[in-house]
Amino acid sequence: METLTTVAALRERVRAWQTEGLRVGFVPTMGFLHAGHGSLMALARPRCDRLVVSIFVNPLQFGPNEDLSRYPRDLAGDERLCAAEGVDVVFAPTDFYPPDRATTVAVAGLTEGLCGAARPGHFDGVTTVVARLFGVVQPQLAVFGEKDFQQLAVIRRMTTDLGLPVEIVGGPLIRDPDGLAMSSRNTYLSADERSRALSLSAALRAVVNAATAGERDVDTLRAAGRAALQVDRLDYFEIVDPGTLAPLATLDRPARVLVAGWIGRTRLIDNMAVPWI
Amino acid sequence: METLTTVAALRERVRAWQTEGLRVGFVPTMGFLHAGHGSLMALARPRCDRLVVSIFVNPLQFGPNEDLSRYPRDLAGDERLCAAEGVDVVFAPTDFYPPDRATTVAVAGLTEGLCGAARPGHFDGVTTVVARLFGVVQPQLAVFGEKDFQQLAVIRRMTTDLGLPVEIVGGPLIRDPDGLAMSSRNTYLSADERSRALSLSAALRAVVNAATAGERDVDTLRAAGRAALQVDRLDYFEIVDPGTLAPLATLDRPARVLVAGWIGRTRLIDNMAVPWI
Repeated sequence: METLTTVAALRERVRAWQTEGLRVGFVPTMGFLHAGHGSLMALARPRCDRLVVSIFVNPLQFGPNEDLSRYPRDLAGDERLCAAEGVDVVFAPTDFYPPDRATTVAVAGLTEGLCGAARPGHFDGVTTVVARLFGVVQPQLAVFGEKDFQQLAVIRRMTTDLGLPVEIVGGPLIRDPDGLAMSSRNTYLSADERSRALSLSAALRAVVNAATAGERDVDTLRAAGRAALQVDRLDYFEIVDPGTLAPLATLDRPARVLVAGWIGRTRLIDNMAVPWI
Repeated sequence: METLTTVAALRERVRAWQTEGLRVGFVPTMGFLHAGHGSLMALARPRCDRLVVSIFVNPLQFGPNEDLSRYPRDLAGDERLCAAEGVDVVFAPTDFYPPDRATTVAVAGLTEGLCGAARPGHFDGVTTVVARLFGVVQPQLAVFGEKDFQQLAVIRRMTTDLGLPVEIVGGPLIRDPDGLAMSSRNTYLSADERSRALSLSAALRAVVNAATAGERDVDTLRAAGRAALQVDRLDYFEIVDPGTLAPLATLDRPARVLVAGWIGRTRLIDNMAVPWI
């Protein structure tokens, strides 16, 4: 495994692989990697000849009052995890954006609700960085976690619309044994905050259980979930169509329940599939 | 030469070329091809193994009151010209955009003045279609005419910002013997309109001549040019830095003079290099 820190070095490596006809897999990350990221690499590894993991804390996807400056970093730890997952290249660029960058890639519709409503401009930052990452890495396959469920839908839409020959694979959300969805931001949580953070997955499970028991009314399902929440502020708690992300009034198809809320100064998200039985 | 009319057919052809390691050149057009387009193909031909010309009248780059519905078309004539220039594939898609397209690619800054000010949304349409064309065609080289000087600068910016491995080549503007810049829209002009349309290139030449004679004041240079114009409405007549497209106050570097104006119902553009001696 090698770590490349410039766009030019990565391009050179990718060009050589292309000449050999090798299939390139790609897992984009913001670093501070955990087992959730590892599971995405494990999904990609058998489906490609060369595996690239990018580590880049993208300023474009942070709002002015968000946690860009304190976002956790640990390149040495990240390299160990990547090596253990059989990654070929860690791409940790120090010169990612061109100096006079002026291009934005934006997806309408899917980005309007949920995290898009709570974090204005966030998804424009995501699609802009991923479009450039795809341009530089030229992968045939890219894996994104279902933890960021809306992001995955937005990236699929962008990839289709830009005609990119990249297969997008979604990787299942990974939880700690106590049920907390793995996130680099969990490192912000105090012990007390962490115990309240468990209420996110508990609330989602309450919805899944009620749906499994036959409840079809979405207001009733949401109320069952929200009763379990112990957040300081709720951004959203929604039950949506998993393709369009449009809120449902009645559970008349397989759906997704998604939550975003604040525990102290930490914003956490989580989601689960809601069965339609 | 073959004509492919679906995205899937084009992708299949491109994939086969990639497997053979062939270099793909690309000239995107809106059809109704003339010798100006032919010159772009002639520029591309010796620099690639396979040459694709797209013919697609992109609705996204037309404003609501512009000439989308009457834009001239002649696929049979276009195919003859392409065949004569040694084109391998004419890509004339009938299914270009996905049904639920929601992605826009936008370049800030460079798109704000000149045609961007006169045609709101135009360049978003251009960058969105070209990004998708590049995604589908996967060229190593693409040629755009300097006739659309601002467009060429915008496409270069987008290609750099998205990290695309596409070499962008600008092709010189081609004129009829009387000096009129070649354009598919010239077909709209009556005989009287055409003679007044010659005032565009005459005005640009007046600027070039005054600059060559030593004039450095941009207001004076512009006045010399505008005196020659016989347009019904002027969108702009500007002398700008050829890289940033920012208007100059003094001719203190090699520059570009650009004009856009209306002759009857027809909007025409033209531009020339202004020497700095």
